[in-house]
Amino acid sequence: MRIAILGFGSVGRGIARVIQEKDPGITVTGLADSRSGIMDPEGIDLPAALDRKEKKGLCGDRQVSPLNVVDGAEYDALVEVSPTRIDDGEPATTHIVHALSRGKHVVTSNKGPIALAHRRLHALAVSHGVQLRYEATVCGAIPVLHILQHDLLGNQVQALHGVMNGTCNFILTRMEDEGLTYDQALAEAREMGYAEADPTYDVKGIDAALKLVILANTVWDLGVTLDDVEITGIDLITPEAIRLACDRETTIRLIAEAIPEKGLLRVSPRIIPQGHPLLVEGTLNAVTLHTDLAGELTFIGKGAGSVETASAVIGDLLYLGEHHAGAH
Amino acid sequence: MRIAILGFGSVGRGIARVIQEKDPGITVTGLADSRSGIMDPEGIDLPAALDRKEKKGLCGDRQVSPLNVVDGAEYDALVEVSPTRIDDGEPATTHIVHALSRGKHVVTSNKGPIALAHRRLHALAVSHGVQLRYEATVCGAIPVLHILQHDLLGNQVQALHGVMNGTCNFILTRMEDEGLTYDQALAEAREMGYAEADPTYDVKGIDAALKLVILANTVWDLGVTLDDVEITGIDLITPEAIRLACDRETTIRLIAEAIPEKGLLRVSPRIIPQGHPLLVEGTLNAVTLHTDLAGELTFIGKGAGSVETASAVIGDLLYLGEHHAGAH
Repeated sequence: MRIAILGFGSVGRGIARVIQEKDPGITVTGLADSRSGIMDPEGIDLPAALDRKEKKGLCGDRQVSPLNVVDGAEYDALVEVSPTRIDDGEPATTHIVHALSRGKHVVTSNKGPIALAHRRLHALAVSHGVQLRYEATVCGAIPVLHILQHDLLGNQVQALHGVMNGTCNFILTRMEDEGLTYDQALAEAREMGYAEADPTYDVKGIDAALKLVILANTVWDLGVTLDDVEITGIDLITPEAIRLACDRETTIRLIAEAIPEKGLLRVSPRIIPQGHPLLVEGTLNAVTLHTDLAGELTFIGKGAGSVETASAVIGDLLYLGEHHAGAH
Repeated sequence: MRIAILGFGSVGRGIARVIQEKDPGITVTGLADSRSGIMDPEGIDLPAALDRKEKKGLCGDRQVSPLNVVDGAEYDALVEVSPTRIDDGEPATTHIVHALSRGKHVVTSNKGPIALAHRRLHALAVSHGVQLRYEATVCGAIPVLHILQHDLLGNQVQALHGVMNGTCNFILTRMEDEGLTYDQALAEAREMGYAEADPTYDVKGIDAALKLVILANTVWDLGVTLDDVEITGIDLITPEAIRLACDRETTIRLIAEAIPEKGLLRVSPRIIPQGHPLLVEGTLNAVTLHTDLAGELTFIGKGAGSVETASAVIGDLLYLGEHHAGAH
């Protein structure tokens, strides 16, 4: 399988390193970061590209743009992992549209395009007989989309709940374990590299809500967007509230939940009893599916990290290789 | 897809009810319990068969044996869910061998044949170009075999740990929560229908060890049997041991673990820290996979139950329908 990788930050480089180390039968024929690109139908020299990126900050030639690579490289699947604005999902959405329109599969870790334009992009993929896969957009290394799409055949998923943001979960875990205030725990999360300089996107619940939108649209084809989610973040939670929860053998977690039959789509701090499967520690993610036959199933794993995200992207690519080889 | 169901106990009837209620495109053309059988290439009247079983204890005619159905019915996949001796895996193994030799797919919930004869049965399936699937043999409703075989492509599974016996987990949970002795908790498990009259198979760790053997042979093709597993049950655990563990913010669970690179295959009571994902309550099951890219992934769900087992069997059948339709 030949792929083009768009975006050569930690995720793109993680994917390149995994391909280089594990040799899973994937050849990279196109590669671009925001300021340069490179194409070679015989396969790009990945160690050299990684080295160039480290030393010069560029993976290829300044004359070659990301869109040049999308439109011109010879590949079976585009891997779209470039930095993308969350308000309009660009430039990833344009890259994805171009690739699908060329009849190429797309695998992405970018939440924006999938949360904002899932129906349009899915329809475009179907009309060109190719696949749009995005396991890496939700819950990091947990293969929840694969599980939902392939492993629960015969089951109806009636609802889902999850801890979908590792930053929030880390902050709440530290507030509980050490009695820290929100600001102290946030400072610690920043020091550990778990929170951005501007933590709004995580702590206000927006990141979890985007994942919820992606899951809801995938499972039930609801056609919802961020505006349809009732969102409350964790930034107003006090140590007193956490202590009170602990006294009752419960604790507080930021829970994303979707219950279509009640029209419920919500991200909010919730009280969870001790011993509940969703009650994970630190930066872990967890998702519980409520199904009619299999009952409640909970999946727990790392929610972020370049290798974990690479794992999800490579999993999607190898799935395409097994099931849709040589489509184009 | 046409199937023959062998075994019409709670699992077989659960499957029949799900097919009847959900109409997932499956026609039952053969059906047998240990003393009777029925065949109809046009499709057996399932409500009538369920009614006969309830009123007369027989699903079909006394003249028709299970092996008659295996050898004579017209079906694409055999569903082998008949009561089977754990020491020799019969009569299920013979049924499976006959069906595979006829070029029919097999889906089973019977641990015996898979734990005792996986390599031989797998080779037979391969040589006839059909599939042998057995999701229902391990961890009930958790689709752990599907996940291992299809959702972690590109990952190497390095080790696995799990709570694989709901009876033991219920007993240990009750000893911890209520300070019961082992005998008191076992009596309660019996009352709740979670333990057999003879609980040896569960409490001595044999059931968990069989599941471990099945998982290890599936993931790593180790070719191991029950004799290769170091087994310690839960029947000698005292309330004092549990109290001591609790004082240290840990608890005791029966853990099955496989670490091939250390040659380790073991079922034994282990001390687990509070907050660990494997620390599930009551009759739940949990499995943690240690992978090179995705890190640690934990899956939690119901370990038993006729509907949950039916869910796993139906999932395997629908998978066959999607991926191996019309093989024979």
